[in-house]
Amino acid sequence: RREDNIKTNLSANRRPLVNRKMSENGLASRRGKVLTTDTMNPSVKKVEYAVRGPIVQRAVEIENELKKGAKKPFSEVIKANIGDAHAMGQQPVTFFRQVLALCSYPELLNSPLFPEDVKSRAGRILQSCGGGSIGAYSASQGIECVRQDVAQYIKQRDGGIPCNPDNIYLSTGASDAIVTILKLLVCGEGRTCTGAMIPIPQYPLYSAALAELGAVQINYYLDEENCWSLNIGELRRALVDARKHCNPRVLCIINPGNPTGQVQSRKCIEDVIRFAAEENLFLMADEVYQDNVYADGCHFHSFKKVLFEMGPQYSNTVELASFHSTSKCYMGECGFRGGYMEVVNMDSDVKAQLTKLVSVRLCPPVPGQALMDLVVNPPKPGEPSHATFMKERTATLRSLAERAKLTEQILNTVPGIHCNPVQGAMYSFPQITIPERAVQEGQAPDMFYCMKLLDETGICVVPGSGFGQKEGTYHFRMTILPPTDKLKILLQKVKEFHMGFTEQFS
Amino acid sequence: RREDNIKTNLSANRRPLVNRKMSENGLASRRGKVLTTDTMNPSVKKVEYAVRGPIVQRAVEIENELKKGAKKPFSEVIKANIGDAHAMGQQPVTFFRQVLALCSYPELLNSPLFPEDVKSRAGRILQSCGGGSIGAYSASQGIECVRQDVAQYIKQRDGGIPCNPDNIYLSTGASDAIVTILKLLVCGEGRTCTGAMIPIPQYPLYSAALAELGAVQINYYLDEENCWSLNIGELRRALVDARKHCNPRVLCIINPGNPTGQVQSRKCIEDVIRFAAEENLFLMADEVYQDNVYADGCHFHSFKKVLFEMGPQYSNTVELASFHSTSKCYMGECGFRGGYMEVVNMDSDVKAQLTKLVSVRLCPPVPGQALMDLVVNPPKPGEPSHATFMKERTATLRSLAERAKLTEQILNTVPGIHCNPVQGAMYSFPQITIPERAVQEGQAPDMFYCMKLLDETGICVVPGSGFGQKEGTYHFRMTILPPTDKLKILLQKVKEFHMGFTEQFS
Repeated sequence: RREDNIKTNLSANRRPLVNRKMSENGLASRRGKVLTTDTMNPSVKKVEYAVRGPIVQRAVEIENELKKGAKKPFSEVIKANIGDAHAMGQQPVTFFRQVLALCSYPELLNSPLFPEDVKSRAGRILQSCGGGSIGAYSASQGIECVRQDVAQYIKQRDGGIPCNPDNIYLSTGASDAIVTILKLLVCGEGRTCTGAMIPIPQYPLYSAALAELGAVQINYYLDEENCWSLNIGELRRALVDARKHCNPRVLCIINPGNPTGQVQSRKCIEDVIRFAAEENLFLMADEVYQDNVYADGCHFHSFKKVLFEMGPQYSNTVELASFHSTSKCYMGECGFRGGYMEVVNMDSDVKAQLTKLVSVRLCPPVPGQALMDLVVNPPKPGEPSHATFMKERTATLRSLAERAKLTEQILNTVPGIHCNPVQGAMYSFPQITIPERAVQEGQAPDMFYCMKLLDETGICVVPGSGFGQKEGTYHFRMTILPPTDKLKILLQKVKEFHMGFTEQFS
Repeated sequence: RREDNIKTNLSANRRPLVNRKMSENGLASRRGKVLTTDTMNPSVKKVEYAVRGPIVQRAVEIENELKKGAKKPFSEVIKANIGDAHAMGQQPVTFFRQVLALCSYPELLNSPLFPEDVKSRAGRILQSCGGGSIGAYSASQGIECVRQDVAQYIKQRDGGIPCNPDNIYLSTGASDAIVTILKLLVCGEGRTCTGAMIPIPQYPLYSAALAELGAVQINYYLDEENCWSLNIGELRRALVDARKHCNPRVLCIINPGNPTGQVQSRKCIEDVIRFAAEENLFLMADEVYQDNVYADGCHFHSFKKVLFEMGPQYSNTVELASFHSTSKCYMGECGFRGGYMEVVNMDSDVKAQLTKLVSVRLCPPVPGQALMDLVVNPPKPGEPSHATFMKERTATLRSLAERAKLTEQILNTVPGIHCNPVQGAMYSFPQITIPERAVQEGQAPDMFYCMKLLDETGICVVPGSGFGQKEGTYHFRMTILPPTDKLKILLQKVKEFHMGFTEQFS
């Protein structure tokens, strides 16, 4: 076995320089690399994450070429590939950043530069930190007063339905918490292997985490003809199919939808909960876009609230984990990696296991926890920072609503592009018609399209294949985050590109 | 199979309230919890993490009892269980926190309160962030200018040996990076399953990560009689034994040692590197305590430096990942979760896989990246903040050295306690003699001892069994972080407790 191993390592080594060097001495010539793509974790190899995949690597290359003075038909790369609001020019909320500055450098608590509510909030956070410093580890589940504030926020958001701070876990962005819950749920092999139902199109964190954990990905397709709505018949079809080859145990929902931007109706959420209860599925509700609802008649309903309003036969039994983050909504504070999850009806022994598991990484970043606290407990009417906070929040959300509408409208003027209304979240996911000749170019047709778009216009969007799409259909995901003026230009360029592309390959 | 599954779930449900509620309606009575300890990920169940385990939970309970006015033989709990400097009263470095405040709230760039070098450093960091905000995502590998500064730091630390910023990955504390590298290395089942060699005693992140990843833990014992030194004969013994049942592929070293506080000699590091080369092992060097060296004649030697000084037959072949963090040394900034790793001689295709893998979590927390930058690139002579920075740094390291000496000295005055010199890091790991009658108390003897110590004195230390120890020997890990005055009282209390305990059970 040992001999085999050495042989495998050597044959896997593809780097001639190293091979030559190795032959110069007896020791190294006996061995190749310990770690090669042939001998590494096979689950890691299966992981894909399109939002930062090859198209983004190419975008970075082009940026560097531009810096070095290369001549292109455009002067800058516009990264519409990722929901990164600040990178697109959105300004941070003043109150949040003032409190964070005081938490970082508490000497400023004595400075006349800051309003009283900023000082008292920073003081409260610091008091709850070990040694009065955000440089101390927090409890692994998160700072206690932050968890209390999160619970209070959820209770108020959900019309008074109680929320227990013991059910709140702070996290390193929502991604961390989502992976942690999936990790708890994974077990078995082959036909007993845990299956997780995820929407298609999906946010590729889900497929990546399932690949890494070795769980089975069960696709349920959202209904593009009906504004990307979720159809219970389709859920059932996917479940019945999956039961033939794995053990489906968890149902993941993204609402408002990423990349698809739909906002689920209350009725739909009720149906999903009933389905999960009947079919014995653990529910995961990704609700990081809960403030990003733009379309008339659409409202955000949390799974927690609907679950509890459906009565004790559901609220006492259905297991739910829901997720939120500092990265989206009007805050867009991605870099701080703040987030939380609430677990409902989780078995108490499993909760103890969860607490133990998160303790291995010690704690989520404390600045992110502090920020999460400010998000769930913003300035109140009458406090000095309230007016500015409301002005900033409203302006951002109003502008996002405007950009959502604009994106849909302009894209739908292009022959061969169809874009559903961007009811919520931060993305459009238009369907694009790709001429047959372009389909035969040898790579995934939407990747071919997006690479060409990038090369010709500097606009970076992500091919639909990175999120999943019905076979034979093609899409891309584009954020609505560029400032309105820039967005108009960008959409105009997409329009021109698409028409040129269609002509070229027809 | 489905029927079996339901049965398992029901039988696993131990909560009578839920069971009763379930029987009130047809739907829920058909099912128990989806997720129970019987149906959860079995690898997660195997994870243990003593540093935040039962003893710390008991400490928190006692703190709450004290808050409610309970009478105890002590007035506060002293948490000597975890290397959390700020929680024990260490003050943050002024320069670091000033820059972080300006990064959080860039309006302060115009304030006369801050020295020019603080402003220019904050400006430089902000310029390298998307949209000039630390709220933007960074590149998944970390901010480019921070990686450049890390590379420059390593080069200077290692006497000019080159360091490529492309080999630097920023991380969420060192823990994150360590788990990521282990994750890449895990593959195979049974006799082909990846084995990882770790020191005993070890920092339990390693055992926890290996349990979670399903890899084989291979113990090599440090030599307590020789100041916890690493012995190549013991490495070989452990490796030969392990090859009978798994595929050993990685050798983990913690230097300076945690929990054991030893500092490895240059000769020892050379021997380890030679061993790794001969035996085809990937080297992981946990060097988060690189500034924490106190004992006369001890010096920190990085694995990277020694590897390169051993000549091309090693420096061109041996695969090494080394780890650093903002949490230890003189900074003690645990809450920011900043860290980096350098990978050397990693196969380029594997590196691409690594970059892909870290991109799924988007990026390490940006405030932690900014802090890491300041740690590797502190104020230079002549800059306005230099004098204060040096004063703060020196005072902290000098005081830690004093406390290391003090701890060793006082503990060694106690009959039945033997403490090796605390050459480095932040912990003492004394051996304690536990009388036979106490050994027979029914729980792990060192856990019994530490729980009694906590209950009687309020001092929280971690039993040696949480780190691993030779069978029949007992230890505890105690940080040297309490301020000197407090530390003296604490050590006196340990002494009295130990003598009383010995008397009680003899």
